[in-house]
Amino acid sequence: MPAPIEFWFDFSSPYSYLASEKIEELAARYGRKVEFKPTLLGVIFRTTGGVPLTELVPPKASYFAKDFARSARYAGVPFKHPTTFPIATVATARAFLWLQSQDEALANRFLHAAFRAYFSQDRNIGEPEVISALATEIGADPVALARGVQEPAIKDRLKALVDESIARGVFGAPTIFVDGEMFWGHDRLPQVERWLASGPF
Amino acid sequence: MPAPIEFWFDFSSPYSYLASEKIEELAARYGRKVEFKPTLLGVIFRTTGGVPLTELVPPKASYFAKDFARSARYAGVPFKHPTTFPIATVATARAFLWLQSQDEALANRFLHAAFRAYFSQDRNIGEPEVISALATEIGADPVALARGVQEPAIKDRLKALVDESIARGVFGAPTIFVDGEMFWGHDRLPQVERWLASGPF
Repeated sequence: MPAPIEFWFDFSSPYSYLASEKIEELAARYGRKVEFKPTLLGVIFRTTGGVPLTELVPPKASYFAKDFARSARYAGVPFKHPTTFPIATVATARAFLWLQSQDEALANRFLHAAFRAYFSQDRNIGEPEVISALATEIGADPVALARGVQEPAIKDRLKALVDESIARGVFGAPTIFVDGEMFWGHDRLPQVERWLASGPF
Repeated sequence: MPAPIEFWFDFSSPYSYLASEKIEELAARYGRKVEFKPTLLGVIFRTTGGVPLTELVPPKASYFAKDFARSARYAGVPFKHPTTFPIATVATARAFLWLQSQDEALANRFLHAAFRAYFSQDRNIGEPEVISALATEIGADPVALARGVQEPAIKDRLKALVDESIARGVFGAPTIFVDGEMFWGHDRLPQVERWLASGPF
């Protein structure tokens, strides 16, 4: 089986959410799996001088707010702009990583549930009680999860992933690597598909 | 006939070039014409705090250089990264506008010839002698053109277009308006097509 696709994301990134709803089906069509790798845009932006979409100057900020919603409708993905945006996603990312260390399928259910909760149900997935509720909803043990996210190994794992993303030139999310080739943005999924279908171009 | 599509561009924008190679055919499939409107990203960036792609921090700059070329291959459009990039495009935009004031079809031939000269033949289309050569190549009178670009009405027209683009929230190029709806980037052409095919979404 060919190498998995790496999908780098931040739980606070709307375009990551849109792409997360498509990437596994796309990968599966070409016999690939998806490796979900959280990073933290807040940390990345401090090294690249990037700016959160909401801190852009007014014409850009209002365009992007509109573009999220329109791109979601275009993709057929439910979307409602969160009241609190962006949010700190350290706890959410650690919860995902702890689940991943236990059971990858469960972790992936958490990922989709968290993205949908934030971007279509206006639930603040940065808050511990929302993370616990999501754990219960996907059939994970919220008590074990709350303990798990405090493990030094999980904290170290997230830090290592953030460092790795920066080292590999990730400056935004989603960033997808296919056979080492980097694609930034949900709008590069057609190019990802071309690569999967017929190789380097 | 429904209203034309507005295509705002800068002759120094590679993604404008890519989209310029597709937009007329796309519009024609839905019974629309394209109104080409030059603006100046250098002026826009001073008002929006935008940064030319090449002045981005290293990981972004190298990604975009790669993305231009890959997106061109994906689109089937010849592309060779210009040696001098970006360039001042005031003279090129004025040349286009003077031709447009004389003969729209001729102006559109100039537009495509200039984009291709810059982005596939490494000719510096900001230079007067290259603009003259392009005029000859498309069957325009280079002497009349050189005189035309000095006309106050042409200078005013470009200034008015730049002001209009800023007033309407244009912050990058290409920016496409369909029935007043704004789409930024060549990668939004599929959404433009959806709009043309079935209206607002």
